[in-house]
Amino acid sequence: MSDYLKSINGPEDLKKLTLSQRTELCSELRDLMIATVSRTGGHLASNLGIVELTVALHEVFDCPSDTFIFDVGHQCYVHKLLTGRKDRFGTLRQKDGISGFPKPSESEYDSFVEGHASTSISQAIGLAHAKVLSGDRSKTIAVIGDGSFTGGLTFEAMNNLDQDLDDLIIILNDNSMSISKSVGALSNYLMRLRTSSGYLKVKKSVKDRLESVPVIGQPVSDFITNSKTAFRRSLFGGTLFEELGFNYVGPLDGHNLGELELFFRNLRDSAGNGPTFVHVITKKGKGYTPAEENPGAYHGVGKFDVDRGNPDISLADSFSNTFGRTLAELSGMDDSICAVTAAMKYATGLQYFAHLHPDRFFDVGIAEQHAVTMSAGLSKGGKNPVFAVYSTFLQRSVDQLIHDISLDDIDLLLAIDRAGLVGDDGETHQGLYDAALLSSIGVFKVVSPCNYRELIWWLTRLIGEKGARAIRYPRGKENSELSSYSCTGNEYDLLAGDDDRILFVTYGREFAETLKAQTLLKAQGISSSILKLNVISPLPEGAVEEALKFRNVLFAEEGIKTGGIGEQMIARMAEKGFRGRAVLKAVDTNIVRQSSVEDQISLFGLDGCSLQISAKEIMLEETD
Amino acid sequence: MSDYLKSINGPEDLKKLTLSQRTELCSELRDLMIATVSRTGGHLASNLGIVELTVALHEVFDCPSDTFIFDVGHQCYVHKLLTGRKDRFGTLRQKDGISGFPKPSESEYDSFVEGHASTSISQAIGLAHAKVLSGDRSKTIAVIGDGSFTGGLTFEAMNNLDQDLDDLIIILNDNSMSISKSVGALSNYLMRLRTSSGYLKVKKSVKDRLESVPVIGQPVSDFITNSKTAFRRSLFGGTLFEELGFNYVGPLDGHNLGELELFFRNLRDSAGNGPTFVHVITKKGKGYTPAEENPGAYHGVGKFDVDRGNPDISLADSFSNTFGRTLAELSGMDDSICAVTAAMKYATGLQYFAHLHPDRFFDVGIAEQHAVTMSAGLSKGGKNPVFAVYSTFLQRSVDQLIHDISLDDIDLLLAIDRAGLVGDDGETHQGLYDAALLSSIGVFKVVSPCNYRELIWWLTRLIGEKGARAIRYPRGKENSELSSYSCTGNEYDLLAGDDDRILFVTYGREFAETLKAQTLLKAQGISSSILKLNVISPLPEGAVEEALKFRNVLFAEEGIKTGGIGEQMIARMAEKGFRGRAVLKAVDTNIVRQSSVEDQISLFGLDGCSLQISAKEIMLEETD
Repeated sequence: MSDYLKSINGPEDLKKLTLSQRTELCSELRDLMIATVSRTGGHLASNLGIVELTVALHEVFDCPSDTFIFDVGHQCYVHKLLTGRKDRFGTLRQKDGISGFPKPSESEYDSFVEGHASTSISQAIGLAHAKVLSGDRSKTIAVIGDGSFTGGLTFEAMNNLDQDLDDLIIILNDNSMSISKSVGALSNYLMRLRTSSGYLKVKKSVKDRLESVPVIGQPVSDFITNSKTAFRRSLFGGTLFEELGFNYVGPLDGHNLGELELFFRNLRDSAGNGPTFVHVITKKGKGYTPAEENPGAYHGVGKFDVDRGNPDISLADSFSNTFGRTLAELSGMDDSICAVTAAMKYATGLQYFAHLHPDRFFDVGIAEQHAVTMSAGLSKGGKNPVFAVYSTFLQRSVDQLIHDISLDDIDLLLAIDRAGLVGDDGETHQGLYDAALLSSIGVFKVVSPCNYRELIWWLTRLIGEKGARAIRYPRGKENSELSSYSCTGNEYDLLAGDDDRILFVTYGREFAETLKAQTLLKAQGISSSILKLNVISPLPEGAVEEALKFRNVLFAEEGIKTGGIGEQMIARMAEKGFRGRAVLKAVDTNIVRQSSVEDQISLFGLDGCSLQISAKEIMLEETD
Repeated sequence: MSDYLKSINGPEDLKKLTLSQRTELCSELRDLMIATVSRTGGHLASNLGIVELTVALHEVFDCPSDTFIFDVGHQCYVHKLLTGRKDRFGTLRQKDGISGFPKPSESEYDSFVEGHASTSISQAIGLAHAKVLSGDRSKTIAVIGDGSFTGGLTFEAMNNLDQDLDDLIIILNDNSMSISKSVGALSNYLMRLRTSSGYLKVKKSVKDRLESVPVIGQPVSDFITNSKTAFRRSLFGGTLFEELGFNYVGPLDGHNLGELELFFRNLRDSAGNGPTFVHVITKKGKGYTPAEENPGAYHGVGKFDVDRGNPDISLADSFSNTFGRTLAELSGMDDSICAVTAAMKYATGLQYFAHLHPDRFFDVGIAEQHAVTMSAGLSKGGKNPVFAVYSTFLQRSVDQLIHDISLDDIDLLLAIDRAGLVGDDGETHQGLYDAALLSSIGVFKVVSPCNYRELIWWLTRLIGEKGARAIRYPRGKENSELSSYSCTGNEYDLLAGDDDRILFVTYGREFAETLKAQTLLKAQGISSSILKLNVISPLPEGAVEEALKFRNVLFAEEGIKTGGIGEQMIARMAEKGFRGRAVLKAVDTNIVRQSSVEDQISLFGLDGCSLQISAKEIMLEETD
């Protein structure tokens, strides 16, 4: 087997290879990614699909002088392997290792921090304007999947295109998938473009010319020039992208390296035609049969066996699936329940509901704003909508929660998945803000269960209530130390110790750490109490009253510190005349880098051992 | 002059009039709106433009069985006048009066609370789905301006259209304006549609048929049916809206009442064709010459003289214009400064900058997400972007602020206008959340000047700094009692009294109220101190230390209470061992209804008089 990858320490090395050597390199890149991701977990199918496209871009353009922007960013593995990070690639998504997303602090070849969808065209337009103002003629190239295209931010950017941005190139990586199958009008439209006769005609035409033109030169350039005007229009009339002001080229075969390189080379050399939109067709999972056959299952995967191809996608034992199964069950008894997702049917556990009630299930695509506001419409029509969404993506709907939900008489239940620390996805995916945001908005009743039992009980309870409600739960499985904890159904639980010396206050999964701290203290002969908030907003008055009875209070919060529940509680206690010591342990930075959740919890002194040490320090100060 | 309006107590009365009587009614509606808004202030140009369209909709459809949704909502005046609210119309935008926006709590004819742009299609889709699930065949009609169309939420909704929603009608009220002139690719596209020969052809064809068909019946119905398929396509090829899955009808003349009614009647009666998109051309300001000639000036107006037509749009004396002039001045010395607005050039005072530096000025349309993320691109290209935005609309960019700004090394200065209570626009436009949101995100240095001097000084200072920064200031003019207050340039100012008995802590415009309270207390022989925060996030440590020296602390905050700066400060004080009394006065509800700013300040006990009473209560408790 070839080993061209060995010689690639940067894009300049790529340019030394022949086309056929680069074609072999593509196979090597696939093999390495499959081998690595099967060990580390990560995003596989999207990266297998974008191999030739990434190689072609690096062969033709000069990154980092030319700027590459990968939308969402989880398809940046090939780019990383080609830009000096192949030797560290085995540390993917691990503590202090290579990030699974582009990160400028990791490499000059990465232009922006990416992780959320639909940002790239906005970033590219801003950067391209800056270059024009500075007289910089380098290219700005955004690579965006058709899934990201459904986010409103993408359309805001598309609408804001300036015809003078000659050096702006938008590449639509069209694999007809976001995470699961793409939905919506745009997806249908792209399908029509793909299957139109034009696609094949372009392919044949390019092939003919490749065969007849020995050296890239004027004839090919003419071809490209033609394809941007009459030729293309004769094929497609005017595409939607042309209606929005782009030069549209495509669709191109995203796995034909020679064709891609030819196109990009001519695009690079034919300046002054305004911004260009290149439509490239790729296959998610390309080159690894299990992933080609089931790309959704290989979107984000844990470790798996390469030969047997068995990623554990069922995650039967998870908060997501516990939520999903419970909601499906409840929906049998209440036909007003509707479920809404923003392209996360499986990831949020809604597959059970969707299977039972396809008519009441709405996958709106990557469009969290619309998911919320459309839910408001469902509510006005007498339905009981449930929007299941990751905490980090709920950040996209803040104005909709404020304006479209809180000001009106709307019933909406938010099922907030991945609330809190998320581990190896790193800073872009942390669920740090939902508690602070929702409590500020005020009308939301927010519940934070610590285990499956509580999730099931509170979900059942909240489904039967009216108004704005939210239930939030962490990524993954329940903590085994919490699985047997009984649900009281109360707004808060007080696990009283023997005296009033110290009280831990907490909520959600972090409860486990306070239990550990309590045990550790007990072994040292120190009694402590725990106040576990079940309803975290509005803050239960009774819980505040209970806390006032203690001499020392330590609030442990797996969430952002400023504006969070801990600060709210301590301020309320102070207002009520608390005279003891109050300490707040929470996430005190907006950037929490990739590592295990356990590591991240320790990083902020939120693990049981650190908590007991903090508790002893507080008590020591009291003695002084 | 006719007085048909007198007989209109609901839409059913409209149906009793003849077409020519309804045409006269349109003039009456215009006269009444001009007379009222010239006295009360409000939105004029948009309402003058939508008279015939609203009358036609109410004549043909049955509101509230059929649901009308007015996007943004400020063009709902005609709708309100026709639905039983004409006698109270003189109370427009006043305390306990008629709202300037749709409000379900005010009338069953209003379907959703509206005030922010781009929500209507999402709401309509959700409601239409709910109706399908319930077997309800009533119509759902969203009326949306071309300005609102640039918001990403609109596209998310357009992309999520279901072909089964037969009873969904989207009406594009195309006046080629948002607040100022519409920008962007879509606007250009609409211009092409408007000026295409098809428009005139449709007009002529409708006219011919109106003349030849004495009674509405099969022939006209056939015409409509035809126009939805071959007829329309032959005119336009396939429009962008058809590419997205709609039946597209138009463009229609939005001031030809007969034509509109005919179209809507046939649309109503020809079911089963899937969702329909009706393109209507209107003229903003129609029927009032000064507003026709300068619609931007009559978008939102204060009181004005009807005959002379002289709304005070210059607002030369305002925080907005002080900001705008200062930025324009600074931009002469630093050519890296770029200014970004989301369709608010004049409202945010950026007209000065735009005039001097059109190449560095970016109006992105109503697209706050894109404005932020595009600014990130400008920053990466070495520019110094300033995004000027109302506090209430900044809520649209929260994820962009978190993900695209705070996680990356981005320079962005937010100029947050209308921060705090906004008065007569009411609950949809309050600027209650910016302080809480930005402080949670953490990386932003947030400054809150109280007068023009401070605004100028801090803007000059922040422009020269790096990273994420924000300067926030209230709507309108500076408080005359604060105009002479000198800017210290410190993170906080301590106005120390004679003793440690009571300290007011505050920031921004609310400083004036604490000064009043201080004066009132002094007259009673009570000394008090004031701590004025200039930098409100991150909370200056020195300010917390100063506050600890007092026995009683009263924090007065013109912003949301939960998660706000006051709670943060009190929690910090408690953590540092504060043993005195702490009280927080702030906005403790998410719904602050229309009235004067002074009324709203009093409502939350934030006026000087209430503050001094609260202060005395605290001190009294201390004595007990």
